[in-house]
Amino acid sequence: MTQRQATPSRFDIEAHGSTLVVRIDGGPLQLFGVDVALQLEALVERVDKDPDVRAVVFASTHPQRFMSHADVKWLQQGGADYVARQKTGAPPPVPSEGYVGLDRLHAIFLRMNSIGVVFVAALEGQALGLGAEFAWACDLRVMADTDAFIGQPEVLLGIMPGGGGSQRLTRLVGSHRSLVAILDGKPFTPAQALELGAVDAVVPKADVVARAIELAHHLGKRDKAAVGAIKRSVYFGGSLPLPDGIKLEAKEFLTLNVSENGQTLMLAYQRRTAELGELPLYAPGGYDAALRAGQVG
Amino acid sequence: MTQRQATPSRFDIEAHGSTLVVRIDGGPLQLFGVDVALQLEALVERVDKDPDVRAVVFASTHPQRFMSHADVKWLQQGGADYVARQKTGAPPPVPSEGYVGLDRLHAIFLRMNSIGVVFVAALEGQALGLGAEFAWACDLRVMADTDAFIGQPEVLLGIMPGGGGSQRLTRLVGSHRSLVAILDGKPFTPAQALELGAVDAVVPKADVVARAIELAHHLGKRDKAAVGAIKRSVYFGGSLPLPDGIKLEAKEFLTLNVSENGQTLMLAYQRRTAELGELPLYAPGGYDAALRAGQVG
Amino acid sequence: MTQRQATPSRFDIEAHGSTLVVRIDGGPLQLFGVDVALQLEALVERVDKDPDVRAVVFASTHPQRFMSHADVKWLQQGGADYVARQKTGAPPPVPSEGYVGLDRLHAIFLRMNSIGVVFVAALEGQALGLGAEFAWACDLRVMADTDAFIGQPEVLLGIMPGGGGSQRLTRLVGSHRSLVAILDGKPFTPAQALELGAVDAVVPKADVVARAIELAHHLGKRDKAAVGAIKRSVYFGGSLPLPDGIKLEAKEFLTLNVSENGQTLMLAYQRRTAELGELPLYAPGGYDAALRAGQVG
Repeated sequence: MTQRQATPSRFDIEAHGSTLVVRIDGGPLQLFGVDVALQLEALVERVDKDPDVRAVVFASTHPQRFMSHADVKWLQQGGADYVARQKTGAPPPVPSEGYVGLDRLHAIFLRMNSIGVVFVAALEGQALGLGAEFAWACDLRVMADTDAFIGQPEVLLGIMPGGGGSQRLTRLVGSHRSLVAILDGKPFTPAQALELGAVDAVVPKADVVARAIELAHHLGKRDKAAVGAIKRSVYFGGSLPLPDGIKLEAKEFLTLNVSENGQTLMLAYQRRTAELGELPLYAPGGYDAALRAGQVG
Repeated sequence: MTQRQATPSRFDIEAHGSTLVVRIDGGPLQLFGVDVALQLEALVERVDKDPDVRAVVFASTHPQRFMSHADVKWLQQGGADYVARQKTGAPPPVPSEGYVGLDRLHAIFLRMNSIGVVFVAALEGQALGLGAEFAWACDLRVMADTDAFIGQPEVLLGIMPGGGGSQRLTRLVGSHRSLVAILDGKPFTPAQALELGAVDAVVPKADVVARAIELAHHLGKRDKAAVGAIKRSVYFGGSLPLPDGIKLEAKEFLTLNVSENGQTLMLAYQRRTAELGELPLYAPGGYDAALRAGQVG
Repeated sequence: MTQRQATPSRFDIEAHGSTLVVRIDGGPLQLFGVDVALQLEALVERVDKDPDVRAVVFASTHPQRFMSHADVKWLQQGGADYVARQKTGAPPPVPSEGYVGLDRLHAIFLRMNSIGVVFVAALEGQALGLGAEFAWACDLRVMADTDAFIGQPEVLLGIMPGGGGSQRLTRLVGSHRSLVAILDGKPFTPAQALELGAVDAVVPKADVVARAIELAHHLGKRDKAAVGAIKRSVYFGGSLPLPDGIKLEAKEFLTLNVSENGQTLMLAYQRRTAELGELPLYAPGGYDAALRAGQVG
């Protein structure tokens, strides 16, 4: 994979409170190429470190497409270069700023799964291949009810998903649904995606971004460290042998349990229980208020 | 985590044939604390060893709640003690009868997953946090159709599930449903829990325990060694890489295959096949009778 | 497990284009015994190596049953022989042409999961035990809407699934549905199997084989190497810890990416994009044509 890409992409970033709304411009064909990968990497780094950013909504500047698919030249040339090097004995490319291979792409998506920021894909339009894989790497997906579709067509080019699609879709909709979809190459309609749990909501196209922001705000109110710990426990622990998953959960739990915010909220909960003679989550209105605020009040 | 708990809990145990019905009294606030953990540990030990106990139904003495959640002081103080020890260099608490830390709690739930006893949670009322995790550690769940709910609200206290909830719920309802529920902190209604497969049946509150006993009796008629082997294969093997899971299944299968009961039933099946000129499971009424009896007759 | 079987079985193999339709005759009781295992092993070997075979449909010669279940004598005697050897200190049987133990059976099913051939079970009738496990080891299942059923009744003989059923059913319908079905021993009706995703389609009995062939033809048009890589990524990678699954996917992807067919199709895609000024999958009719042809045209 090389750094050549005809049309440079652009990330338009707008803050809505603690949520960043990022509209990705992937050029006239709305492709996911090296340029998108590099900007995504920088964004993920930034939002991980910024305590004031709690959620990111990804949308597109293209009228019909969330993300068409990968820049095919990027994939194909990477393979061809590899074959050429094998034949000539030339050394592999020096890792440099602009070179994005598969490992680096995976590291970006895995970091999205690991950090305390909630990522929401606002699928106003179509997403195939790496565009779909980018959406699967988000935590939530909202999809337009019209001409949108999402899927993995790689088999139709004699290849297969390479951006984690065969792994994240499998864990999202189950082994068999994923197998059939990837073997066939046919994308899900909004109704199918919703039924399978591949997306969280299907709404009119005009409402997709607003709904995504709403979900982002809601979950973004939760403790950032807790969000990260929960994501790691479910995404990584959930794919481990059960006893190992429980050990991973325990490690994450114990860290939160001694955190300042955790200790403060648990002490407050005990005090409030003594005052009320009832557990705050069971007191009238207590649970609903906590869900809205993102923490027990 | 320490052994202090204001109100000691009580397990009211009543035998219904080979099923024990255990009503847990967790004090006026119906909390899962050290005391409940210790009694649960003793119960699991007992039913594992007693060949005449084949199933356990867990219910509550509280009019509205199955189990409110963990004793928050237990969690919080355990964390605070840990931080204090780190600062002063004091040694960790000596493991003793009364000390229940996370490892010991996990061992109890993992043993519930491992033994040839069928555990059924009779959810007449609410279950949050460790109360929900206790229910996920059972094999079956029956839930009241009224004001019951079940879920993991820990994020609202700046922490996360620590009793296996992020692992067992993930394996029960799938990675994504589990992630969203735990990030949000909102519990499932009976209808949602049923639709997701988080509970097996939703019935009127007055019928919850009776239905749980019925399920317990039905599955409790199966060979105890086979029940344990099947549980281990599904819970543990099912979370392993496929070839490793198949190896675990093979080990369990081969043990049952040379067991006295297995050999006796397989020999009887062959004799009966010769007599009937037909396989007993395919002979008229044969399969239904076997399902009712728990073994081919 | 020994090679004794009263009635030898027969595989009737008929080619329909690149799809083989295999009708298995398991004797009057339609049993899965050593003989079926050996012929299946040979068939899987053959279709893996033959580039012109892209799919296999398995059906039965029995009027009511796909496959009754295992030859119980095979299972029982294998266990009894093992116990006898333990007592007398006799050596284990020499692996020979005719001896089929559990490892060899598992190797056949695992190879079915690994190769670039699409296997479809045409369930015109009942399938229990090893018959069901054989169906779970296929990639797709079509079931009759009448008196068919499919399930794992082993617990009713004091044993458990030994042909991978506790692993593949768990990964097919989820941990909990699988646990309950295997503990109970009750099979799924066609409607239940469809709802749980245990089968892909339920059609009138007379149409089962035709529908299976249709699905086989459709998926069999995809690149054989890609089909194998996708199957391995989903079946094996999908059961690994997420980061390991992604590494497995990457390895498979990179192999396809440098393949002659992959390179040819990706280069053609780029040329066609330049000609059209649009991505072929997004051009009018382009995607549908590719799905029908099995590759982008």
